[in-house]
Amino acid sequence: MMNIKFYVITLVLTSLLGTSAIAKQENSIKPSAAMKRYQEMWESKNPYDNEFYSSFRYKPLKGLEMEEGVSRRDASQILKVADTYYVYYTKVDMKNGVVGYAKADATTPANTWDLADIFYATSKDTYTWKEQGLAIPRGPKGEFDDRSVFTPGVLAWQGKYYLYYQAVKAPYNQRTKNVIGMSWADSPEGPWHRHPEPVLTSGKSGVWQGEKPIRSLIEKEGDFDSLKVHDPFLLVFNGKIHLYYKAHPMGLSGQLKLTYPDFSGGLAIAESPFGPFIKHPQNPVLNSGHEVVLWPYKSGVAALVTANGPEKNTIQWSPDGVNFEIKAHVVLPPDAAGPYVPDAYTDTKDGQGITWGISHIAQRKNQPWPHLMRFQTDLTGTNNRKFKRENIRFSKDALIQSDKR
Amino acid sequence: MMNIKFYVITLVLTSLLGTSAIAKQENSIKPSAAMKRYQEMWESKNPYDNEFYSSFRYKPLKGLEMEEGVSRRDASQILKVADTYYVYYTKVDMKNGVVGYAKADATTPANTWDLADIFYATSKDTYTWKEQGLAIPRGPKGEFDDRSVFTPGVLAWQGKYYLYYQAVKAPYNQRTKNVIGMSWADSPEGPWHRHPEPVLTSGKSGVWQGEKPIRSLIEKEGDFDSLKVHDPFLLVFNGKIHLYYKAHPMGLSGQLKLTYPDFSGGLAIAESPFGPFIKHPQNPVLNSGHEVVLWPYKSGVAALVTANGPEKNTIQWSPDGVNFEIKAHVVLPPDAAGPYVPDAYTDTKDGQGITWGISHIAQRKNQPWPHLMRFQTDLTGTNNRKFKRENIRFSKDALIQSDKR
Repeated sequence: MMNIKFYVITLVLTSLLGTSAIAKQENSIKPSAAMKRYQEMWESKNPYDNEFYSSFRYKPLKGLEMEEGVSRRDASQILKVADTYYVYYTKVDMKNGVVGYAKADATTPANTWDLADIFYATSKDTYTWKEQGLAIPRGPKGEFDDRSVFTPGVLAWQGKYYLYYQAVKAPYNQRTKNVIGMSWADSPEGPWHRHPEPVLTSGKSGVWQGEKPIRSLIEKEGDFDSLKVHDPFLLVFNGKIHLYYKAHPMGLSGQLKLTYPDFSGGLAIAESPFGPFIKHPQNPVLNSGHEVVLWPYKSGVAALVTANGPEKNTIQWSPDGVNFEIKAHVVLPPDAAGPYVPDAYTDTKDGQGITWGISHIAQRKNQPWPHLMRFQTDLTGTNNRKFKRENIRFSKDALIQSDKR
Repeated sequence: MMNIKFYVITLVLTSLLGTSAIAKQENSIKPSAAMKRYQEMWESKNPYDNEFYSSFRYKPLKGLEMEEGVSRRDASQILKVADTYYVYYTKVDMKNGVVGYAKADATTPANTWDLADIFYATSKDTYTWKEQGLAIPRGPKGEFDDRSVFTPGVLAWQGKYYLYYQAVKAPYNQRTKNVIGMSWADSPEGPWHRHPEPVLTSGKSGVWQGEKPIRSLIEKEGDFDSLKVHDPFLLVFNGKIHLYYKAHPMGLSGQLKLTYPDFSGGLAIAESPFGPFIKHPQNPVLNSGHEVVLWPYKSGVAALVTANGPEKNTIQWSPDGVNFEIKAHVVLPPDAAGPYVPDAYTDTKDGQGITWGISHIAQRKNQPWPHLMRFQTDLTGTNNRKFKRENIRFSKDALIQSDKR
């Protein structure tokens, strides 16, 4: 029976393609799989001719250098209002160090983003910054944001400013769910008005047993963001507010064929900054990444995907903000980047790309205080040769140290 | 006419799939492009469950540490004979530095692989090495290998040993073609017998004008390896000697849709170590990479693709040694790796993978002498958790220094 069906298909295909086409195909040498990808996926372009390929250069930021006993991390995208640049970030008093979830108490943070408030700094020249002070404090005791607020993303919308951020209610332990909170202001300098409810929460949960090791968790399919909704990043696209976020399923993914990646990117869309933010039915829209970084590019949306997942260290692009394809493999991308995205909120269909931003340097043994750093790149499609260099090499010390947190 | 054909196809498909399957497909939400790739390309696996994903750890090599005035680089794959490990490598006397092609003379090298000879070292424990001396000297004056011999690959075949290496005839300038030369011995310690002719040469050339800038070269389609046949790497697969090599076209690729990538991997197959080495008709078999590193894995061949090209920093695999697919994205892979490949020459159909090898640290301003280093990994499919770590971070200094050669 099957043979007859295949015979029918062959007949149909033969009549569609014509016998000469089939003969021609047989006579030519088939390109290797790599050469086929080079022509189709990579459009026969070396990285230096690929508008999505760039290297990254790093410089310390004047005014926001490493400070003993202080954690500054998770830069928001950079906002420009009149001639001033603004960055918002997580700030934690680490003068007593960080002690882990088990030992943390009301005044001693578990980690470099616990007991955090959101601070901000300004600059005129993008190189020299001045910390201006507190933007968003933790919420009142008993509220959803009473333990920590961190990883801000910023939105300018119809003359007002909105900060979105992770929020944690005490007690904070390894599997405490975060939510996304929001505050708004008439000026990027505040005063900020706290929205009394989260604007985004996790999806339905799976079930798990125990905290460690993570691999012993019993998988029970929860939504792709059933544990984490992290790292909000705001764009205006197709006339609507797009809130992209990092997501993490409650159960361990990867053991069942249909589970979700451990780290992925979700999208929730709203018509008002106050919500409701409706999660996209095709979520997750990114299958890899850690902090979420995007920008309008040409008629679509580009994403920098870093640190985690099968497609880490790639630049991706989607025509619709939803269906992303890999466009370049990059080396040494910024950690938790907050790029300056000139057209983040203009609802452009001709996105100009990015050239700089602020990333953080995470804590490590010999420099335990996370701090902010400036990066430069060229993801504008102008193909600035300066940023097209490949074969980026590392010193002996960098190689050895990469192993040590 | 077309409508009738499509109608026939639809009928055939409907009878094959059944109407209920088609209805089901229409009712379900289409996964995002990223989720489709996660399920299909990545087989629903996070990197820690991906047999092709590994991190890399680095340690200095006792006995082959950086030495002032000496270049040691381009480690061969590691050969094990009885209880001794052998590595062959490029060695250059740099006591007068390196001076570039224009200023180089009969005794002063242009670069860290000019005026090179091939040396070797041995180890019993893989951590402590002893340089044993010269293996392959430059050839007699006027011969194809009279200026420099470097980047060795080693083959054990029917009780004898073969070294393959790049060879340059004087004068050496930026666009001098290299060839692959060979020497053989009854013992891995020599004495080595020089084969009087190259075993592999470049393909037909394009035409170019001027040396700089490279982008002003006039493209005229030459073979994919019309400038470079570099970095020989030897495996036995399907009963034949497989010589993989780095290739570079003479003209600038990437401007015409059908040209070749700037850096790619070629394959030449022989039944005897003396050749003839027949270039594979589907060349290039890799569209990216710099030094060429491969190993038998399960029933096929795996490749570590680094440094250059659209698919840099990937592990790839092919069932046939020719058609490679991306299997993992890796971070900080070894530069010019010479892995220990236990079954490189056994014609296995159950390749065991690699766990360690020797890479080089290229020259840079503050450490101008290339030298060898040990790396460790787990690409054996045992999924050693120690090497599954992601989110590999860099110190501030590593980030800043990455920019400086």
